Amino acid sequence: MPTHTFIPKHYYRTIGSHTPVLHIAPGDSVITTTVDAWGLDANEQQATERGNPMTGPFYIDGAEPGDTLVVHLDRLTPNRATGWGRTSLASNVVDPSAVTNLPTQNEPIHWRLDLATNTASLRDPVGKLGSLPLPMRPMLGCFGVAPVDEQAISTATSAEHGGNMDYNGFVAGTTVSFPVFQPGALFHLGDGHALQGDGEMCGTGIETSFEVQFTVDVLKGVCSGWPHGENAEYIFTVGNARPLEQAVQNATTEMLMWLQQRYHYSAYEANLLMGYGVEYALGNMFDPAYTMVCKIPKRLLSV
Amino acid sequence: MPTHTFIPKHYYRTIGSHTPVLHIAPGDSVITTTVDAWGLDANEQQATERGNPMTGPFYIDGAEPGDTLVVHLDRLTPNRATGWGRTSLASNVVDPSAVTNLPTQNEPIHWRLDLATNTASLRDPVGKLGSLPLPMRPMLGCFGVAPVDEQAISTATSAEHGGNMDYNGFVAGTTVSFPVFQPGALFHLGDGHALQGDGEMCGTGIETSFEVQFTVDVLKGVCSGWPHGENAEYIFTVGNARPLEQAVQNATTEMLMWLQQRYHYSAYEANLLMGYGVEYALGNMFDPAYTMVCKIPKRLLSV
Amino acid sequence: MPTHTFIPKHYYRTIGSHTPVLHIAPGDSVITTTVDAWGLDANEQQATERGNPMTGPFYIDGAEPGDTLVVHLDRLTPNRATGWGRTSLASNVVDPSAVTNLPTQNEPIHWRLDLATNTASLRDPVGKLGSLPLPMRPMLGCFGVAPVDEQAISTATSAEHGGNMDYNGFVAGTTVSFPVFQPGALFHLGDGHALQGDGEMCGTGIETSFEVQFTVDVLKGVCSGWPHGENAEYIFTVGNARPLEQAVQNATTEMLMWLQQRYHYSAYEANLLMGYGVEYALGNMFDPAYTMVCKIPKRLLSV
Amino acid sequence: MPTHTFIPKHYYRTIGSHTPVLHIAPGDSVITTTVDAWGLDANEQQATERGNPMTGPFYIDGAEPGDTLVVHLDRLTPNRATGWGRTSLASNVVDPSAVTNLPTQNEPIHWRLDLATNTASLRDPVGKLGSLPLPMRPMLGCFGVAPVDEQAISTATSAEHGGNMDYNGFVAGTTVSFPVFQPGALFHLGDGHALQGDGEMCGTGIETSFEVQFTVDVLKGVCSGWPHGENAEYIFTVGNARPLEQAVQNATTEMLMWLQQRYHYSAYEANLLMGYGVEYALGNMFDPAYTMVCKIPKRLLSV
Repeated sequence: MPTHTFIPKHYYRTIGSHTPVLHIAPGDSVITTTVDAWGLDANEQQATERGNPMTGPFYIDGAEPGDTLVVHLDRLTPNRATGWGRTSLASNVVDPSAVTNLPTQNEPIHWRLDLATNTASLRDPVGKLGSLPLPMRPMLGCFGVAPVDEQAISTATSAEHGGNMDYNGFVAGTTVSFPVFQPGALFHLGDGHALQGDGEMCGTGIETSFEVQFTVDVLKGVCSGWPHGENAEYIFTVGNARPLEQAVQNATTEMLMWLQQRYHYSAYEANLLMGYGVEYALGNMFDPAYTMVCKIPKRLLSV
Repeated sequence: MPTHTFIPKHYYRTIGSHTPVLHIAPGDSVITTTVDAWGLDANEQQATERGNPMTGPFYIDGAEPGDTLVVHLDRLTPNRATGWGRTSLASNVVDPSAVTNLPTQNEPIHWRLDLATNTASLRDPVGKLGSLPLPMRPMLGCFGVAPVDEQAISTATSAEHGGNMDYNGFVAGTTVSFPVFQPGALFHLGDGHALQGDGEMCGTGIETSFEVQFTVDVLKGVCSGWPHGENAEYIFTVGNARPLEQAVQNATTEMLMWLQQRYHYSAYEANLLMGYGVEYALGNMFDPAYTMVCKIPKRLLSV
Repeated sequence: MPTHTFIPKHYYRTIGSHTPVLHIAPGDSVITTTVDAWGLDANEQQATERGNPMTGPFYIDGAEPGDTLVVHLDRLTPNRATGWGRTSLASNVVDPSAVTNLPTQNEPIHWRLDLATNTASLRDPVGKLGSLPLPMRPMLGCFGVAPVDEQAISTATSAEHGGNMDYNGFVAGTTVSFPVFQPGALFHLGDGHALQGDGEMCGTGIETSFEVQFTVDVLKGVCSGWPHGENAEYIFTVGNARPLEQAVQNATTEMLMWLQQRYHYSAYEANLLMGYGVEYALGNMFDPAYTMVCKIPKRLLSV
Repeated sequence: MPTHTFIPKHYYRTIGSHTPVLHIAPGDSVITTTVDAWGLDANEQQATERGNPMTGPFYIDGAEPGDTLVVHLDRLTPNRATGWGRTSLASNVVDPSAVTNLPTQNEPIHWRLDLATNTASLRDPVGKLGSLPLPMRPMLGCFGVAPVDEQAISTATSAEHGGNMDYNGFVAGTTVSFPVFQPGALFHLGDGHALQGDGEMCGTGIETSFEVQFTVDVLKGVCSGWPHGENAEYIFTVGNARPLEQAVQNATTEMLMWLQQRYHYSAYEANLLMGYGVEYALGNMFDPAYTMVCKIPKRLLSV
């Protein structure tokens, strides 16, 4: 299968039915780059405006509404040695009465990214924290396909089409699927994080630019309602909504459907399996839509 | 330190300022038993009414309002070879439009608990699932202290005082702390689960009776707002509320406070540490109050 | 029917199965007084501790679990010429990002209550607002019956048993019903407001002490799930919960039930009537449980 | 000022930066028509696809990002004698446990609209309800301006730009303002309801086609964050979001801002006025974003 190399020249801050930058076929791989949430590239140059600019969209031949687009995240590598992020928890993640206790100093802070040791550390040490060395776990914050009804949806938020899900499980080695709403699916990607805490509670991960390799496939006639994923240990579904309950409800309902449709459990069996075996992860509780992930360990699945 | 053995004769279905069943001192251990959520004991006899009946309360000498009660869960052992649970996800955890797709068959299902292999399996195999053997992870669903303002709060729900938190991380080896609201703290416990899925999405774990050993301590003058915990890897705080956002906000605000008060981080440092290092777990999304847990890995703490 | 005059000597800050202060029969009236939310009486003397102290409970002979207690609010009259309240909106009613814009000055403000003109005005004029004269509309903020399962629930909050609903429609002339959970129902009342904005967004109405006259009745075997009410124009149901959606869901579900049970509509008819004729009011969005009211105009009802 | 007559030839199901159908100047009026939510016109002919099709957009000369567009709703008249709507409350407005009690029959029902008597009644009487005659109160369900960031947002939902707010207070005689995000504002309108219950709890009002007359103005340099409105009695702000709390928070925060910016109250005065004088109305609790309206009686305003 061919591997395309694509160098982006412009970026979009909505996910929508924009003119494709490249046509690719199921099975193809793409090597490309993404700028960070502020539009800074591998050289820390301002390549485009702030606001989660997207590389793409890529048109996947043969993908039609009602199909499912499969994207394997082969490789996600920071392509510069620096990142940045916020320092204070967001006002919506603490009790309303505690908002006035949050630090007023909220200038972005700078991180050093060391690929050799796979470690991120603060450029300038902070008191008791020192340089706070943390293992990197590069992930895509925002990616997805053109939404239903010819909408163009801001990359600040997320919905059935994916978007700004900010889930720290979207790392290399993960396969992610999206419902196809428009011909060619129109896959967009960006907003790389060298690492991110659960929930993106401060409003950022360690934001940086990436080199990305991904491989696509199309499941013809396989209809899904929300993004799905799979890694070595889990299958999972993703709900993007407010409030957090609705995100859980979306992900849970989708998993019930998936277990029945793809794994051929009865409704009774799917409920029983989930009742005792389900796990959940918090994607983000910062963006306009929150993200919750519903996971089933693959060891529990009879295939 | 003495170890008390206490055999309960009656049970409470509220957590409140009930007459203590035993006075114990900081450092003391207690070996006792709990009945299951339906009031069934080690012999599957109906020992009391349904509805999360509590063993206790235990009066801890010297505990006063404004202190923190520390409870170490030394041992949680099912004391019978059977358990039961629900089979269908609850109506509030799926999308409202999908409620009518839930199975109408929702009779409790029976589990066998094998302590030798530490495995729970369905008594009667179910189709593709077979006996669904799952590793046991015994946990307390409902425990806590008498609440503020001389309230008596149903063991169906939870709040600042603990209660029906249904978090599957409350296993043996965990230390749990509660704010003390009443003299003697008045510790209650019950509602053992041989294991439970994240969120208790079907409304039960595998419900069974337990033999429990716990050890108490009192932190004089250490004031907390919500339950805390600690295990080998994490310190954590627990928020119990609706909606799920509020539970997250409570747990997050409490962790910010704790990092500053006990670990002597500045507000700026605590925010920064949490922004990149925090993790979350879903306790329950079934009970009248939902439970979210905010965790910080101990390896990130400079003590 | 007899009219009892009752002078309270002590007050409760929970609604629960406390020893009754008076036994009364269906059809009886009671004239009594309530202190304000801070425990101040008609003479602005501290009669008891702060925290919505309750007059009562009154034991209504013949009321049993499964019945409905009917309380007609005959008269609600401030019994002093002063009231007080907060000046800043609560942190949970504005967007989290706007909390830091709320005034830091949040000392209670003093109001003059003029019964002759039925007007409340600020004791000390405030800039452009002057004395802000407002028509009084005296209402009970907190009242209800002993809750299920022998709980004792703080008068800060509300639930199926009523409690701190803070709905400004609970004025004289209104009939309010409660599900009976304990023998005698055990009716408590207090927390009078000379007037209150929708939602109690600043956390208080104009708080003052009241003289109250009410008349009780019991509907034997009429089972309800939540408080109901009726005035000249509407029948209404009350939902108390978080989030606001759940309060709406509770009130709406109760109205559907009521229209079928008491007004003999079919489910289809009740849905249709509500779909086009329902109205909603916001009780409070400040207390631990929020209150929403579901109303049906009586002119739409075929009796 | 000129009055334009515009006959729509096509319709949009997103609100976005579409090619304008007409350029108009501040002060101009437009007479036009809207199709119903299913795309049916004055002759009940299918003029376009289902899904709240919009007439417009109208380009208002001189409107620039950072201005406020003012739209006076001069006249909203059903232009046919029929309407339709749903018959069952939506699954998300009742308690999750009551969803299975909703009627399974949910075919649309037909209404007759009598302009002479201003009355809507069921075409085919339903049991105890008979023809359920209700006074018409024609309103626009969905209208607004092109959103920020060149998004195109489905007419199923609403946000800062307006959209599918489904508030039954948007009747003739009301003036509605929108923040301008795109040059020319690009005003869209449609989704007329002959009447609608509070909250649009069944998912529709009485859906019909309209003849509409509106007049526009532009407030240069007046920046707003959310839709505003004014009628004979009230000024009001509109919040569109989930959960309902967030919609309240948005509307409340906007009103606080407006009282300070346009009416020159201090923050302290604006809080005090709102604390005791504010009222709320439920727009919709059915659409992807819910709508709450924050109202201040004009008699309380010192201008």
